[in-house]
Amino acid sequence: MFIARVRGNVVTTQKVETMVGRKMLVVEPVCLDEKATKLVPTAKSFVAVDFLGAGTADLVLVTQGSSSRMTTQTERAPVDCVIIGIIDSIHADATQVYRKSGG
Amino acid sequence: MFIARVRGNVVTTQKVETMVGRKMLVVEPVCLDEKATKLVPTAKSFVAVDFLGAGTADLVLVTQGSSSRMTTQTERAPVDCVIIGIIDSIHADATQVYRKSGG
Amino acid sequence: MFIARVRGNVVTTQKVETMVGRKMLVVEPVCLDEKATKLVPTAKSFVAVDFLGAGTADLVLVTQGSSSRMTTQTERAPVDCVIIGIIDSIHADATQVYRKSGG
Amino acid sequence: MFIARVRGNVVTTQKVETMVGRKMLVVEPVCLDEKATKLVPTAKSFVAVDFLGAGTADLVLVTQGSSSRMTTQTERAPVDCVIIGIIDSIHADATQVYRKSGG
Amino acid sequence: MFIARVRGNVVTTQKVETMVGRKMLVVEPVCLDEKATKLVPTAKSFVAVDFLGAGTADLVLVTQGSSSRMTTQTERAPVDCVIIGIIDSIHADATQVYRKSGG
Repeated sequence: MFIARVRGNVVTTQKVETMVGRKMLVVEPVCLDEKATKLVPTAKSFVAVDFLGAGTADLVLVTQGSSSRMTTQTERAPVDCVIIGIIDSIHADATQVYRKSGG
Repeated sequence: MFIARVRGNVVTTQKVETMVGRKMLVVEPVCLDEKATKLVPTAKSFVAVDFLGAGTADLVLVTQGSSSRMTTQTERAPVDCVIIGIIDSIHADATQVYRKSGG
Repeated sequence: MFIARVRGNVVTTQKVETMVGRKMLVVEPVCLDEKATKLVPTAKSFVAVDFLGAGTADLVLVTQGSSSRMTTQTERAPVDCVIIGIIDSIHADATQVYRKSGG
Repeated sequence: MFIARVRGNVVTTQKVETMVGRKMLVVEPVCLDEKATKLVPTAKSFVAVDFLGAGTADLVLVTQGSSSRMTTQTERAPVDCVIIGIIDSIHADATQVYRKSGG
Repeated sequence: MFIARVRGNVVTTQKVETMVGRKMLVVEPVCLDEKATKLVPTAKSFVAVDFLGAGTADLVLVTQGSSSRMTTQTERAPVDCVIIGIIDSIHADATQVYRKSGG
């Protein structure tokens, strides 16, 4: 899995039938910096299925590949990227690197 | 999944039998820039199966790996990259980053 | 899938039994340049199974991962990269980017 | 598989039900340097499931993709990254590149 | 698949039970250079299961992902990287790029 920040959303009208009604979010993977004190953006973009209610700027946990079909909502769907958790906090050593606002 | 722009098409005569009759498009992944206001090209190329009728310059949603076989059209085919949607629009924060022309 | 140029071949005597008799080619992925007028090398190397008769300098279409086992010749083999087509031509916009010599 | 160093941990309250109770660690892949005498960090971050009791700064062996579901603990879970071993030592040529402290 | 050079080995005591007794080698992918006359290192490291008896400095053929479970020795194991051949020679154009010493 990887940690990603929600950046936006994608709208498609013409699509594979099994994709109708799915919320598709643009997410950007983030990485711990060298000292493990903050998260740095990677400038990459993925599109992930969301059924947990993630919002813009949230940090989320993303699963890729065939494992992204291992949820009730995505079973047998042509998806290779799904949000499996909304992150509350990340700790590295004694430092709290991230805490969800309002969480 | 990832967002990609359709760049061209590939013609093959000599091929695996199950690939006969499939439309193969060259697509280039694109990423949101740092401010989430525009899409930037990545200079990478993939070849994706298309059965939705995508055209040159369209932005499309692409699934990779075993999940690309999870459509009626690609089941059990030796394909690892398929277009599952033609993108109408992409929003990031309050900005409309992309809108399909004529859409 | 990706577009690749055949660069060479690999010979192995000591190998997994199900790999005996397979032709293994070294291929280099190529990408469309920014203006979509020519193909540029990536300097990466993969080894792909070939049963279509591809030759040195040919451009081929390559499938990766579990999908590379979706041919009669590679079913249940420990291969993750296979040539599924020999490319005749590639077009981008109105430009013919590639045409197989003698094709 | 790849070698990674444990950097931190991730807490998620809102998540896919099958992820409840799993320990999720942030790990950073490391690589052998040119002379094979030391390990160098890659600045990348992955999140891996841990059920072996790995601790911060440990070097671990990480499996990705569908193979990460091939343990009793992760079978059918939407996970694509799991720790399958805590590394005691790494040797390259005649050099001991790493030895677990207290090991 | 990719071509890699064996660099070292990894020892783990605490591990998933199905990993007991497996030989784990650190391998570095190598690529053909622009002129296809020599192999260049990539500075990346993977850990691959070996049951063919590969030794330090050998060039090996490596399969990744679910395909690495398609051998009798790795079936249903949580491994995503396995050595399927020890390379005797690599040819590119009329050049012999590599020949195993003593081979």
